[in-house]
Amino acid sequence: MTAQGKFISIEGLEGVGKSTNVHFVSDYLFRNSVEHIVTREPGGTPLAEDIRRLLLEPREEAVDAWCELLLVFGARAQHLNTKIRPALEEGFWVVSDRFTDATFAYQGAGRGLPMGDIEHLEQLVQRGLKPDLTILLDAPADVGLQRASARGALDRFENERLPFFERARDVYLARAKADPQRYLVVDATLPLPMVQQHIADGLSKLI
Amino acid sequence: MTAQGKFISIEGLEGVGKSTNVHFVSDYLFRNSVEHIVTREPGGTPLAEDIRRLLLEPREEAVDAWCELLLVFGARAQHLNTKIRPALEEGFWVVSDRFTDATFAYQGAGRGLPMGDIEHLEQLVQRGLKPDLTILLDAPADVGLQRASARGALDRFENERLPFFERARDVYLARAKADPQRYLVVDATLPLPMVQQHIADGLSKLI
Repeated sequence: MTAQGKFISIEGLEGVGKSTNVHFVSDYLFRNSVEHIVTREPGGTPLAEDIRRLLLEPREEAVDAWCELLLVFGARAQHLNTKIRPALEEGFWVVSDRFTDATFAYQGAGRGLPMGDIEHLEQLVQRGLKPDLTILLDAPADVGLQRASARGALDRFENERLPFFERARDVYLARAKADPQRYLVVDATLPLPMVQQHIADGLSKLI
Repeated sequence: MTAQGKFISIEGLEGVGKSTNVHFVSDYLFRNSVEHIVTREPGGTPLAEDIRRLLLEPREEAVDAWCELLLVFGARAQHLNTKIRPALEEGFWVVSDRFTDATFAYQGAGRGLPMGDIEHLEQLVQRGLKPDLTILLDAPADVGLQRASARGALDRFENERLPFFERARDVYLARAKADPQRYLVVDATLPLPMVQQHIADGLSKLI
């Protein structure tokens, strides 16, 4: 393989079906003979997964929003430089359950950190690398939260209240609207076969 | 107490006597009835200490330098916003075993990351807050490394080779030279009573 692989991220709030559809994307690529890796953020390498645990586990100590943001980008630097970039350069496609759009949604809109500072960190860490396709699974915040609650113990983000996720959803949608070339917005409240038909249509254009 | 406390950092390479002299500074402040807390970087809060462990433990996975830098500043944001700033605002002095000078020395000079990017993160996280006094315990890199090795198992930084620490020492000294008001450079190869006399002289001017 010599051509650079393509980079696909799957985004959306808790409980919108990201995991299910990451598997669907992987199956679709497999059936089309596209060699790829599946990964996730925060995480994707042993160190980045350790950082993920620090980010997600509920703690008594109040977590400073800047600390959270810097941990997210720290994990991303490790993931990007030791796993994603090498894979893309070898010609593999990369399918990631979340990437930097989630940072704008959760730490930007959710926590209220300045978008300009997040953009600066994005540039520092990514040096221009962005997903070729971002599949945004969109649903009203309360729909996904109910599904996430039904799954069991909630992590530090899932424990946030509804307005946090409503702000995050708004930013996801605004970012998608501003760059329709990169984003495929899918109504995640539709029946799963319809959701996956939309995703397959988006993928067929990329292959 | 109403006046803002003062912020003292103790800096230097491995094995130059930072711990011993942090205790000396604390004793000196205690004898002069200055209420203070003693802390360290990376670390100082439960979350920041968890980040410290990720930074220091040797691992098979190569740690990306940008990840390391962002973890350092993530821990610093937590430490500064939840512990150092509140203490200073209540009038306590803060004595920290290392602060941001170590980042310029280790991640900047040691790892070769751009100083301008470190300065930007410093501004993002610290918003202008810097130590009032930085005591730099200076010794040739090989002297301290021998002492550190004699202490037992080495962490991920102590495992670096001599040129890494020589570059770090040069940056420590250059930063001290550029801002003699803030730094007290102490020759750490002198007998301990003389080292501590220099430190006491510096502290007496601050009180």
